[in-house]
Amino acid sequence: MHGTYDHLAGQSLDRLAALSDGIFAVAMTLLVLDLRVPASEARHSERELWDALVHLGPQFLTYFLSFLTLGIFWLGQQSQLDRFERGNRRLAWIHVGFLCAVALMPFSTSLLAEFVRYRLALGVYWLNLAILGALLYASNEFAWRSHLLGERGDDVYRLHRRRIVDYQVIYAACFALCAIDTYVSIVLLIAAQLFSVLSTGVSPFRRG
Amino acid sequence: MHGTYDHLAGQSLDRLAALSDGIFAVAMTLLVLDLRVPASEARHSERELWDALVHLGPQFLTYFLSFLTLGIFWLGQQSQLDRFERGNRRLAWIHVGFLCAVALMPFSTSLLAEFVRYRLALGVYWLNLAILGALLYASNEFAWRSHLLGERGDDVYRLHRRRIVDYQVIYAACFALCAIDTYVSIVLLIAAQLFSVLSTGVSPFRRG
Amino acid sequence: MHGTYDHLAGQSLDRLAALSDGIFAVAMTLLVLDLRVPASEARHSERELWDALVHLGPQFLTYFLSFLTLGIFWLGQQSQLDRFERGNRRLAWIHVGFLCAVALMPFSTSLLAEFVRYRLALGVYWLNLAILGALLYASNEFAWRSHLLGERGDDVYRLHRRRIVDYQVIYAACFALCAIDTYVSIVLLIAAQLFSVLSTGVSPFRRG
Amino acid sequence: MHGTYDHLAGQSLDRLAALSDGIFAVAMTLLVLDLRVPASEARHSERELWDALVHLGPQFLTYFLSFLTLGIFWLGQQSQLDRFERGNRRLAWIHVGFLCAVALMPFSTSLLAEFVRYRLALGVYWLNLAILGALLYASNEFAWRSHLLGERGDDVYRLHRRRIVDYQVIYAACFALCAIDTYVSIVLLIAAQLFSVLSTGVSPFRRG
Repeated sequence: MHGTYDHLAGQSLDRLAALSDGIFAVAMTLLVLDLRVPASEARHSERELWDALVHLGPQFLTYFLSFLTLGIFWLGQQSQLDRFERGNRRLAWIHVGFLCAVALMPFSTSLLAEFVRYRLALGVYWLNLAILGALLYASNEFAWRSHLLGERGDDVYRLHRRRIVDYQVIYAACFALCAIDTYVSIVLLIAAQLFSVLSTGVSPFRRG
Repeated sequence: MHGTYDHLAGQSLDRLAALSDGIFAVAMTLLVLDLRVPASEARHSERELWDALVHLGPQFLTYFLSFLTLGIFWLGQQSQLDRFERGNRRLAWIHVGFLCAVALMPFSTSLLAEFVRYRLALGVYWLNLAILGALLYASNEFAWRSHLLGERGDDVYRLHRRRIVDYQVIYAACFALCAIDTYVSIVLLIAAQLFSVLSTGVSPFRRG
Repeated sequence: MHGTYDHLAGQSLDRLAALSDGIFAVAMTLLVLDLRVPASEARHSERELWDALVHLGPQFLTYFLSFLTLGIFWLGQQSQLDRFERGNRRLAWIHVGFLCAVALMPFSTSLLAEFVRYRLALGVYWLNLAILGALLYASNEFAWRSHLLGERGDDVYRLHRRRIVDYQVIYAACFALCAIDTYVSIVLLIAAQLFSVLSTGVSPFRRG
Repeated sequence: MHGTYDHLAGQSLDRLAALSDGIFAVAMTLLVLDLRVPASEARHSERELWDALVHLGPQFLTYFLSFLTLGIFWLGQQSQLDRFERGNRRLAWIHVGFLCAVALMPFSTSLLAEFVRYRLALGVYWLNLAILGALLYASNEFAWRSHLLGERGDDVYRLHRRRIVDYQVIYAACFALCAIDTYVSIVLLIAAQLFSVLSTGVSPFRRG
């Protein structure tokens, strides 16, 4: 009986993309809820307000890190979905799992911001990134094996696989550095991702 | 007078799908607000943070259960909307009612997470699932009787009806087991839904 | 200079619809944040939990009322946007204003739920509905005068105008009844809207 | 290696628009969370409720200001995206940065509402507007230099550039007036933006 329901469900890549954009949008905006505005009763001068904002430093840092990370995963997922010629129910479920991990990012971020010097908090954050990577990898693998990619699918598959593995190696290396200090990990994570984003070799005149 | 307004309102299945994806996306992401980050003032070691995270166990369990459930209902609604050849105002209202129950899921989930050993909390949760099922059933029934499904509509109608009834039987059975223990119900709900998701007989080479 | 920028901005009815669906989706789901789960520390039996849920009665009532109302306005706005043949910048601004009032609904609802016996709270709620109606009326009026409706535009214009005025008369009448009791107003508002929704003369076989 | 991934990622302007609409929708609706409903325990008469609402004055003012501002930036971004003939990965990243600043608006607004007489709070708010403007300017500049605008691209580019610069001059001037009083700045910001919105020289009969 399920075999037949499978032909009905999860066919629409458009709605999968719409749900994904929605969940990314909400998760990215919820990150900001961590930036709690200081209470005005306890501050009586511009100077005290300035101190309170400086005190929000770790929150700003993790906000920026998580927004950047979600941006990278959003582009990664989008560039996969763009290339699929059709969807199916199992593919839809891999992506619902991926979105479940996306929706957890505000929690992991909040935990890291609150316990910025704790390895366990950084570990939970890294675990979240690893799950995101694993599910994106699974989606790529599954789509390739199920012939959901069209012609030139082999190239697309290999490029995505390499990309995901590269990022996960960077994430694991940055996480390992928390043996020294968690701030080293966080700053390196931001630096590595920013470098990747800014070093984009843009060649808008040539389209592959 | 209404008869004529009916010809204007609720015709657009695209916007109904967009509103649905939006409400599902927000509801799925709001679930995470239950995972409240422990306060850093009260924790002074990695060990204490670990204990605090373990203490969040029921919240993680219900987060996962509700994300899974909303994923199932999202796919169920989507596979109905995909097949409708046109919409009308009454169909739109059935789905607005359905979305009203979707938006209640973060509340029911939160209640269950807070009162995980209370049958009443599980009862409210189950009632929410039953309303979701009933409205999806009503949508299917209405669309079929109103000839909104195109050719092959009878098969589509029967498949959806059977699917919804099967799920509701599982939900009712799992709920009944709260006579033993609410955790038995919750774990069985997750197991049954995971099994249904993972056992998908994927056959991407054949499309019905 | 503005005259020329006008030719660039606000042309896309698709993106206006997408922003609208997004804001409606978030506002409809945020309504549920009013349903605050009782704290488990203070409740020690199924009976006490039941009492706590019964105590949430006004919150459930206003949640249901506002979801219904937003559903009606969503359908109303959608059926207007569906008929516009093109957009322009001023039309976009009328709808941004409308969405500003939509985003205020969770506040008005929350205020009414907290002060359910206060006429002032009901007055703020009614004012919100009146602003929503006024802007929808303005959009209809502007679109008609600016020839944004295509052929058969006169009928569409008149139907929408009558619809909006009818609803506003009902809202004003229900609000006036708060001279007796605010609960009378609220129950009548729900009843009148439910009646309007359920009495839809569905005729899916005839399409105008 | 990246050069090739660039040909996969960020091509879809549709999904960039969808993510943008989602983030704008969530940010615009989250603004309302600042309007905290007064607690009913502390208010015992219509009069006391009225006082509590009047006390929310700065929150209403900043809510309205920020909704208006986000509406202006939404239209500005939309009218750019509408004109791009294709996307690329670097353009996508400029817009992700822009959206990162959009998602910060509820924080800046909240800070301004809480510290409405503090120049530092107004400075943070203005900084947020300046970043939004700078990234929109960068997007316009980049799109023009990368030939992403089609024919008539030079006019479109110049119109957008002038528009953004005009607005930023107004923002900077209003901010400078906080040397007198922050309320002067806020009221002038609202007035200038409202004037710009209302003075739209609508000419729906002529389309450029």
